[in-house]
Amino acid sequence: MSAEPGTVRPGGRTARVRTAVLRAAGDVLAEQGFDRLDLAEVARRAEVGKTTVYRRWGTVTALVADLLADMAEQSLPRTRTGAVRDDLRANALLVQRTLADPRQGALFRAVIAAAACDPRTAEALRHFYAVRIAEWAPCVSEGVARGELPVGTDPATVVRAVSAPLYYGLLTTGTAPDPAAAERAADAAVAAAQAGVYAAPVTPVTPT
Amino acid sequence: MSAEPGTVRPGGRTARVRTAVLRAAGDVLAEQGFDRLDLAEVARRAEVGKTTVYRRWGTVTALVADLLADMAEQSLPRTRTGAVRDDLRANALLVQRTLADPRQGALFRAVIAAAACDPRTAEALRHFYAVRIAEWAPCVSEGVARGELPVGTDPATVVRAVSAPLYYGLLTTGTAPDPAAAERAADAAVAAAQAGVYAAPVTPVTPT
Repeated sequence: MSAEPGTVRPGGRTARVRTAVLRAAGDVLAEQGFDRLDLAEVARRAEVGKTTVYRRWGTVTALVADLLADMAEQSLPRTRTGAVRDDLRANALLVQRTLADPRQGALFRAVIAAAACDPRTAEALRHFYAVRIAEWAPCVSEGVARGELPVGTDPATVVRAVSAPLYYGLLTTGTAPDPAAAERAADAAVAAAQAGVYAAPVTPVTPT
Repeated sequence: MSAEPGTVRPGGRTARVRTAVLRAAGDVLAEQGFDRLDLAEVARRAEVGKTTVYRRWGTVTALVADLLADMAEQSLPRTRTGAVRDDLRANALLVQRTLADPRQGALFRAVIAAAACDPRTAEALRHFYAVRIAEWAPCVSEGVARGELPVGTDPATVVRAVSAPLYYGLLTTGTAPDPAAAERAADAAVAAAQAGVYAAPVTPVTPT
């Protein structure tokens, strides 16, 4: 089926190729890990010419960096319930569903493993988390503004505290978190924030 | 230098070979990652015959599993200060120093990356953390017995909560934790435990 001239917006084919290639790259990563990612295999799965993939991405690390950029662009907006605990529970459940999903969980493990060995992937991963944390940080600052959390609470640290136990369990034991773990992660972050743990250094620390 | 007959206890040479080989394996993992680990290279670095290494360990994954078993055996005993917060701060600072140490931090990242792709390494890693958590769990149960934390607080969950933000930061952003982050991690776990977050499910959760 070919479109009428002028009915496909500029970039339409380019965007479709990108979507197909990134989907295929994510599938290979989730199924086989970073080591087995190969541009020719990705092209075959995406039903896109090999030359296109080599010309546009060039290397496996560039392809993974673009996949992470796309995941950051596509990721869901934050929740706004009007209560910090409910917002952070929604965040925790979103992280939990992602990590417990067989494809997404395996994809994150593969990308985090790749970032341990490859600086470009590490940079792309940092960018991905920076985008996600910036998206959810207002849940905390609004909670501070409403008086639910102490003044001076650091929003990014609280958002990271919600994700941390969910990722830690997956990465060190291979066990995906369940919804109860997600709610516990959110409630723990709120309890610690309410106790002032994320508002100021606990004790003076001398850098050594 | 050769020892007098009878002056070397049975297993002495075997133990020295193991120490040298595991040290070399850890060095290669820390410097180059799991992908580059090669039994011949480990034998060369350890100044041990290749045949010995192949006969005794056979595969890279068996060697990494033995390295993790040794790390679990060698790991430090828990602290006993008489106060749960101080015990957990000591635990957090131990984890922080390990992850911030260039060799140890790189070694843990390499092994966690390897566990994402290899079931035997994943099992060895789970065993390592199970040993560490069992070592430190009494800090929490003794805190409960002293009335510092609510009855029913789950010791393993609290110990994992202390480590989680320290590992999460390293694995997702490549940034090793500093001592302030370690104390914050311990204080957050204590605050959440005191609030009852680790004592019972937050809300009834229906398994699906």
